[in-house]
Amino acid sequence: MSIYLSDLAKHLHSTLLGDDRIIKGVAEPFTKNDDQVILILEKKTINKKDRIRSKAWIVARLLFNDQLKHFLTSERISYMVVDQAYEALRQTIEFFYPNEFTEQAIHHTAIVHPEAKIGEKVFIGAFCEIEKKTSIDDSAVIAKGCFIGQNSKIGRGVHLDPNVTVYPNTEIGNNVIIHSGTVIGSDGFGFYSKEGVHIKIPHIGKVIIEDDVEIGANCCIARGTLGETRIKKGTKIDNLVQIAHNVVIGEHTLIAAQAGIAGSTTIGDHVIIAGQAGIVGHIEIGNRVTIGAQAGVIGSIEEGQTVSGYPAREHSEAMKREAHISQIPKILESIKAKKKRAE
Amino acid sequence: MSIYLSDLAKHLHSTLLGDDRIIKGVAEPFTKNDDQVILILEKKTINKKDRIRSKAWIVARLLFNDQLKHFLTSERISYMVVDQAYEALRQTIEFFYPNEFTEQAIHHTAIVHPEAKIGEKVFIGAFCEIEKKTSIDDSAVIAKGCFIGQNSKIGRGVHLDPNVTVYPNTEIGNNVIIHSGTVIGSDGFGFYSKEGVHIKIPHIGKVIIEDDVEIGANCCIARGTLGETRIKKGTKIDNLVQIAHNVVIGEHTLIAAQAGIAGSTTIGDHVIIAGQAGIVGHIEIGNRVTIGAQAGVIGSIEEGQTVSGYPAREHSEAMKREAHISQIPKILESIKAKKKRAE
Amino acid sequence: MSIYLSDLAKHLHSTLLGDDRIIKGVAEPFTKNDDQVILILEKKTINKKDRIRSKAWIVARLLFNDQLKHFLTSERISYMVVDQAYEALRQTIEFFYPNEFTEQAIHHTAIVHPEAKIGEKVFIGAFCEIEKKTSIDDSAVIAKGCFIGQNSKIGRGVHLDPNVTVYPNTEIGNNVIIHSGTVIGSDGFGFYSKEGVHIKIPHIGKVIIEDDVEIGANCCIARGTLGETRIKKGTKIDNLVQIAHNVVIGEHTLIAAQAGIAGSTTIGDHVIIAGQAGIVGHIEIGNRVTIGAQAGVIGSIEEGQTVSGYPAREHSEAMKREAHISQIPKILESIKAKKKRAE
Repeated sequence: MSIYLSDLAKHLHSTLLGDDRIIKGVAEPFTKNDDQVILILEKKTINKKDRIRSKAWIVARLLFNDQLKHFLTSERISYMVVDQAYEALRQTIEFFYPNEFTEQAIHHTAIVHPEAKIGEKVFIGAFCEIEKKTSIDDSAVIAKGCFIGQNSKIGRGVHLDPNVTVYPNTEIGNNVIIHSGTVIGSDGFGFYSKEGVHIKIPHIGKVIIEDDVEIGANCCIARGTLGETRIKKGTKIDNLVQIAHNVVIGEHTLIAAQAGIAGSTTIGDHVIIAGQAGIVGHIEIGNRVTIGAQAGVIGSIEEGQTVSGYPAREHSEAMKREAHISQIPKILESIKAKKKRAE
Repeated sequence: MSIYLSDLAKHLHSTLLGDDRIIKGVAEPFTKNDDQVILILEKKTINKKDRIRSKAWIVARLLFNDQLKHFLTSERISYMVVDQAYEALRQTIEFFYPNEFTEQAIHHTAIVHPEAKIGEKVFIGAFCEIEKKTSIDDSAVIAKGCFIGQNSKIGRGVHLDPNVTVYPNTEIGNNVIIHSGTVIGSDGFGFYSKEGVHIKIPHIGKVIIEDDVEIGANCCIARGTLGETRIKKGTKIDNLVQIAHNVVIGEHTLIAAQAGIAGSTTIGDHVIIAGQAGIVGHIEIGNRVTIGAQAGVIGSIEEGQTVSGYPAREHSEAMKREAHISQIPKILESIKAKKKRAE
Repeated sequence: MSIYLSDLAKHLHSTLLGDDRIIKGVAEPFTKNDDQVILILEKKTINKKDRIRSKAWIVARLLFNDQLKHFLTSERISYMVVDQAYEALRQTIEFFYPNEFTEQAIHHTAIVHPEAKIGEKVFIGAFCEIEKKTSIDDSAVIAKGCFIGQNSKIGRGVHLDPNVTVYPNTEIGNNVIIHSGTVIGSDGFGFYSKEGVHIKIPHIGKVIIEDDVEIGANCCIARGTLGETRIKKGTKIDNLVQIAHNVVIGEHTLIAAQAGIAGSTTIGDHVIIAGQAGIVGHIEIGNRVTIGAQAGVIGSIEEGQTVSGYPAREHSEAMKREAHISQIPKILESIKAKKKRAE
C-alpha cells in the first residue's frame, strides 16, 4: 500500500510541512524505514535522531521545538506535529492496516450445538465447540480451537483468539478481546480440610466479563464459588495473570503480566497493577491505587495510594526504608569509632 | 429446583429452627437471595447481617451465640446450626447441583488409536487425540481438545477439562482433576554447555500423578530427565504453577497460584505453599512446612516451620527483621542527638 | 533393548573397567536399576554410594579418585570414566532411546490452506490449522492441535508440541522446539489513555525466533507494536515465561521458569535469568549478566554483573545489605547499654 504523506496528514487532522512523499507503511524509528513514516514519541528518540533513515516524521507536540524544527528543515525531512502522539500512532496503523477481518462463516469442522444461538456475521473457526444454550452475538469472532461451555453468553464483536477455553455459565460482554490459551471460569481453589484430607468445594458460580475488556494470553480467571468473579468495563489484563474466585475488578484498571490476585479481593477503578505483583485474598484496593512491580500486598489500600515492596507500603516509605538500610554501615562505623575513643 | 428447607436440614443432619420455607438454591450472603439459602461461615458476615435479604440461614456453630439467636428469632429467619460449616457448604451445593455428568460417549471427531484401551462409561470429547498403548480407565471424562500421548495411563474417574496436554508415558491416578490448558510431562529445562552453546539433554523420564490430586489451569509439570516427577495422593495445585523435572511433592499438600518449584526438590506431606512463592532446586522441604506468599526459599526447611520473605526465613524472624529496619530512624536520631550533645 | 556395556563404552569413547555386562537402559542412581547403567554426576551421589544397586557406572572424571576406584573394584562394579559427564548422559540416553520420530504425514483432519507451502518429510498432526501463505520447511513436526497464522515461516526440523498457537507473520528458525500451550505473537500490552479510557494500539509487528531456540510450555511471547520481538540463536526458555513486545533477547541466553521481561528491553548474549525474576521495560541487560531468582531489575545492567534482590543490586552488595540488617539488634543493644551507663 502506497499513500501520499499529505493524505495521512489530513487523516490525522494535522498539516504536512516539507515536501509531499509517497510512503508505504509505518515503522519504528531505528529500522530500514526509508519509504515509511515514523513517529517521535519519546525524547530519547530525538537524541539519536541522526540514526533515523526515514524522511517522513510524525512528531509529538510536546517534543517539538525550534532546534528540532531547524534539524527537520535542514535535513529536508517532511513532518507533521500532532497533539496526541499515541492516538496518531493508532490512527496511522489503522490507516495502513485496516482491520480486514470480515469472514462470516462457521467452519465445517466446528461443532455448534443445535440449541446454541448464533448471531449474524459471526465467525467460528475450525475445531471449535460451542455447547448448548450458549449464545454468540453479532460479529463475534471465535478463532480456531476454542471451547465455549453451555449457558454462556458471548457479546457483540467479541474476539477470542485460537485455543481459548470458556467454562459453562460465563458471560462475556461486547467487544471483549481474549488472547490465546486463556482459561475463563475454571474452578476456584477452594477446599476444606477434614482429618488431614482436602475436600473440594464444588464451584457453581460464574465469571462475568464486562464490555471492552481485553485479556492477554495464557491467563486464568476462576469462577466464583457461589457468586461471581467480575471484571468490569474497560479493564485491560496482560499475559499469564491469575484472577482467583470471587474477585471483583473495577473499571478501566490495568493489570500487567504475571500479576496475581487471590480470592474474594475487590479492586477499584483506574487501578494500575504492575508486573508480578501479588495481592492477598479478602481485601479491598481503592480506586486509582498504583501497585509496583513484584509488590506483595497483604492488606487493604485506600484510594489513590502508590505502594511497592514486600510487604507493600506507601512507595515513598518503602524508598525511605531502602535508604535507611543503606545507612547501617555508617551507623556501625560511628559506633566503632566511639568505642575506640572510649578505649 | 425448589426444595423445603426442612429437607435440606435433614440432609445436613441438622435441625431447622423457625418456619419451614421453600428455597431455590444456595447463594452468597450479600446478593439478591430472597428465595435462596445462605451460609454464615465468617464473623465479618454477621457484622453486616442487616444487609442480608435471605430468610434461610445455615450458621457455623462457632459463630452462633445468644445475640445472634435473638436476631434470627426476631427477624423470623429460619435457620440451622452446623458443626462443620464448609462441609455443610459442600453438601448444600451438591444437594442443589448434583454432578449430572453422565455422558458416556466417544465423540465421532475424537481420534482414539486402535491400540488404546478405553474403559467403561468413558467420555472422550470432540477433537481429542488418544495415542497408542494408552489406557483410560472407567468413568474418566476427557473433555474437548485434549491430547494424551502414547503409553500413558489415565485412572478411574479422572476429569481432564478442555485443551489439556498430556505427554507420552504419563501416569495419572484415580479421581484426578486437571483444569484447562495445563501441560503434563513436557521436557524439563535441562542443558549442558559446551563452548558457550547450550546442548539439550533428552528427557526420557515421566510424570506420575497419584490419586485424588487436583491441578489448576495453565500449569506446567515437567517430566523427569531419567526418573520421575511425582505428585502424591491428595495434593491440590492452583493455576499457573510450575513444577520442574524430578520434583517430588508429598501427600495432601496445597500449592497456590503462580508458585514455582525448581528441579529435583522434594516437598513433604501437608505442606502449604502460598501464591507466587519460589523454591530453588535440589532441596528438601519437610512435612507440615508453611511457605508464605512470594517467599523465596533457597535452602532446605525442616518439618513444621513457617517461613516467609526473601531469602525465606522462619516467619517470626522475618517479622523481627522488618521491625528492626523500622528502628533505623530512631537509631539515626539517637546518634545525631549524641553528636549534638558532644558538640 | 539390551546392549553390552562395552559397546556403550565404545560409543562414549571411553574404556570399560571390570566385567562386561548386559544393560537395558539408563537410570537415576537411587532407583531399582540392577540391569541399568547409571551416571555419577555429583559428589553427593558418591556420598550415598552404598545405596546404589546398579553394577554399571559412568563416572565423571572430576569425581573419580583412588578411594572411589577401590570401592568400585571391591564391589565388582563395572565402570567407565568420562571427561564430559553431561555429554555422556546425553549420548547414553540417545543410545538407548534414539529419536525415532519419522512419521511424515499430514493428518487427514489437519486443515492446510492451499496457499500454504509445506516442505518434505513434514508431519502435521490432527486438528492443526495452517493458514494461507505460511511455509513449513522440511522435516518440521507440528503436533496435534497447533495453529499457525498466515504469512508465517516455520524452519527446517522445527518441533511444535501439541496445542501451540502461532499468530500470523511469525518467523521461526531451524530446529526450534516449542512446548505445549505456548503462545507466540499475541498482541503486546499497549494502550494509551484518553479521558480515563484505555485505547488499544493495534499491533502489526512480529515475533522472530532464530535457530536452535527452545521455548517451554505455556509461555507467552508478544509481537512488536510496529517492529519485532526477537529471540536470538540458541537461547533456551523454560515454562510460563513472559516476553513482552519489542523485547530482544541475545544468543545462548537461559531464562528460567516464570521469569518476565517487560516491553522494549534488550537482553544480551549468554545471560542467565533465574526463576521468577522480573525485568522492567526499556532497559538494557549486558552480555553474560546473571540475574538471581525473584530479582526485580529496575535499571540497565552492565556486562558481566551478577545481581539479586529487589530492587536488584550487585549480588555481593545485596548480600552485605542482608548482613547489615542482621546487625541492627546489636546496634540497638549497644545504644541501650550506653543509655544505661549514662544513667
